[in-house]
Amino acid sequence: MTADTFDGGVTTPRGFRASGIGVGIKAAGLDLALLVSETPAAAAALFTVNRAQAAPVIVSRDHLRRSGGLARAVVVNSGCANACTGDAGLEAARAMAAETARLVACPVEQVLVASTGVIGVSLPIEKILAGLPAAARALGTDQGPAAARAIMTTDPFPKEACARARIGDREITVGGMAKGSGMIEPMMATMLAFITTDAAVARPLLERALGEAVNDTFNAITVDGECSTNDCVMLLANGAGGAVVTEDSYAAFAGALRAVCHTLALAIVRGGEGATKLVTVTVTGAASDAEGRRAAKAIANSLLVKTAIHGGDPNWGRLIAVAGRAGVEFNLARAAVRIGSIVLFEQGCPLDERAPEAAAYLKGIDIAVSVDLGAGCASSTVWTCDLTAEYVRINAHYRT
Amino acid sequence: MTADTFDGGVTTPRGFRASGIGVGIKAAGLDLALLVSETPAAAAALFTVNRAQAAPVIVSRDHLRRSGGLARAVVVNSGCANACTGDAGLEAARAMAAETARLVACPVEQVLVASTGVIGVSLPIEKILAGLPAAARALGTDQGPAAARAIMTTDPFPKEACARARIGDREITVGGMAKGSGMIEPMMATMLAFITTDAAVARPLLERALGEAVNDTFNAITVDGECSTNDCVMLLANGAGGAVVTEDSYAAFAGALRAVCHTLALAIVRGGEGATKLVTVTVTGAASDAEGRRAAKAIANSLLVKTAIHGGDPNWGRLIAVAGRAGVEFNLARAAVRIGSIVLFEQGCPLDERAPEAAAYLKGIDIAVSVDLGAGCASSTVWTCDLTAEYVRINAHYRT
Repeated sequence: MTADTFDGGVTTPRGFRASGIGVGIKAAGLDLALLVSETPAAAAALFTVNRAQAAPVIVSRDHLRRSGGLARAVVVNSGCANACTGDAGLEAARAMAAETARLVACPVEQVLVASTGVIGVSLPIEKILAGLPAAARALGTDQGPAAARAIMTTDPFPKEACARARIGDREITVGGMAKGSGMIEPMMATMLAFITTDAAVARPLLERALGEAVNDTFNAITVDGECSTNDCVMLLANGAGGAVVTEDSYAAFAGALRAVCHTLALAIVRGGEGATKLVTVTVTGAASDAEGRRAAKAIANSLLVKTAIHGGDPNWGRLIAVAGRAGVEFNLARAAVRIGSIVLFEQGCPLDERAPEAAAYLKGIDIAVSVDLGAGCASSTVWTCDLTAEYVRINAHYRT
Repeated sequence: MTADTFDGGVTTPRGFRASGIGVGIKAAGLDLALLVSETPAAAAALFTVNRAQAAPVIVSRDHLRRSGGLARAVVVNSGCANACTGDAGLEAARAMAAETARLVACPVEQVLVASTGVIGVSLPIEKILAGLPAAARALGTDQGPAAARAIMTTDPFPKEACARARIGDREITVGGMAKGSGMIEPMMATMLAFITTDAAVARPLLERALGEAVNDTFNAITVDGECSTNDCVMLLANGAGGAVVTEDSYAAFAGALRAVCHTLALAIVRGGEGATKLVTVTVTGAASDAEGRRAAKAIANSLLVKTAIHGGDPNWGRLIAVAGRAGVEFNLARAAVRIGSIVLFEQGCPLDERAPEAAAYLKGIDIAVSVDLGAGCASSTVWTCDLTAEYVRINAHYRT
């Protein structure tokens, strides 16, 4: 199952409309997105584990609980995270939901809210309230791309994906959009992802599918090891396609969902702040899945690994050094390092004659590195990007 | 107790000689250092906890054990880490020690060995063996500065410190030198530190004093969160000053030792790769010392915090976001953030009107930031530096 990037997003599944408009929160461009299901959709969501939770996260959690897991609309602004903004921030998030509910004509608890941008700045709620009627008027089944643009912050490009699967004689569609470029290491990151499907999926299956898909996709990426106050992934299933997902057809739905999440997650990394390369880090020979993931994340977050890859330097010693300090079982005598398919260290010995070949490989933009810990049989794959001077430039002057 | 930077290093205490010469391991400059005590000195050492331990670490551990904690000499090369170099690397480290033992006329197990530089490259042992006689001839009580230069890699300046204390009617001196600039987050980092004292200190007291001093100094710094394969701190006490450290006089000795370690540790951070600012990160209101240290390290290693400080952006939301994801108890409603002495967030509310004052403060080169977790009474301080495009440049092209 693969997803078709840019071949449609959240409005590809039947029964969803979206819009994206500019209301002046950002200095320029689109900054307010609306996503509406024609009928109440079953909703599942995963939120940041950061203990400093933003107001929209608190409000969306509350609404999901009060609605019994139903949602008609999602309203999202970029340009301001509405995080660390106290009671006024909570009131603003609730006001955003209330006005959306009025326009869509649904109970307020069926509206989910998300915000992304600078932390600690008051949300200009009057601009959002003034702009929401226009956003509602702009709703269309062809406006997914506008919504995908309206949720961007430092993203260099919008991120959309869709996938299809057959359930019996019916086709179901899963579509999604995401934003995220810096402050990216989910559980969760400064990323927002909104996924729609026209399949009918009961909440327990919906939550299970979302949890499984996110674990191997959004939760397996990192740009800078930073976890934000606002992250969320929301999944709405409205059943407009007429197909019902059951235990028997779960695999087909889960596969399509996973494909969409995978495509969006990799797009986030590829569009990571300052990134020039997408790096796939695979750890094998781990004592357990958890140790494999921990070692892979340590490598993917290593400044020295990320700068070496940026510079095209096959400095495999840095990969070994990170594996050795990752707090996992590690056996140097049985360890191995590969850059692409080129073995540079094995059985305790450097194979430096292959360094020029590895250096040539590193000139590419899709890079794979792997480390065998020599400790067991488990493995894990995560995705990261290189660290560049541009990342420093972007983040040294984010607000100025 | 403060240490006098650059007012003498390892040869300031009586009975120590040192030298630093160039033998062609690096493309240019000094790269081989020798440190010799006139008499066998009590020795204590702390080594990297990285599981990929370099050959010199393995050999020095072994020698310390076999000598019963006595050392006459330390031999150090820069330009090559002799790590991940298999059996040939171990043989090279042993040969370095053996030739030093011959020149100093001591048992081989009384020689400690250290190396620093690129990982996974064979040590040019023939250059070291050919150069050691010249290094022995160059030994002098005024050659500490040459030794401090010979252990540098990407360090922008040499690091020396000394401190004095009175024990009864005698003065004792503690001197030290260190190297380290990148791959710095001890337990331990790509740092080497060599400390001498002319006090007589029995091994249990020596080990206790070193452990305590390192915990709050070398183990409380980070440049890039990376832990190397070669780190070590070695402490030699030769008793040449005639004063004996006992439980009664322990505090005086420990204070002088801590002062030297503190000065050297901060010099490492100030000379961190690409660094333009020294940043003191204090966490208060932690539920425990360990949680305070964990939160402080998370802040000190945050790319977004380090780039914001580099850019002079008082983006306190990033400090809160890191505290919230550091895996420690955290209460947003009681949390606070200070940049310098300027409170920017308190009791759940931003105080953004103070941002211009904080931005002006951030133009300095000695920056203090603090976060109150609002969770308890414990606190911790660590030191870091800003993250700059120069760090990326240095590490993207370290070997090229």
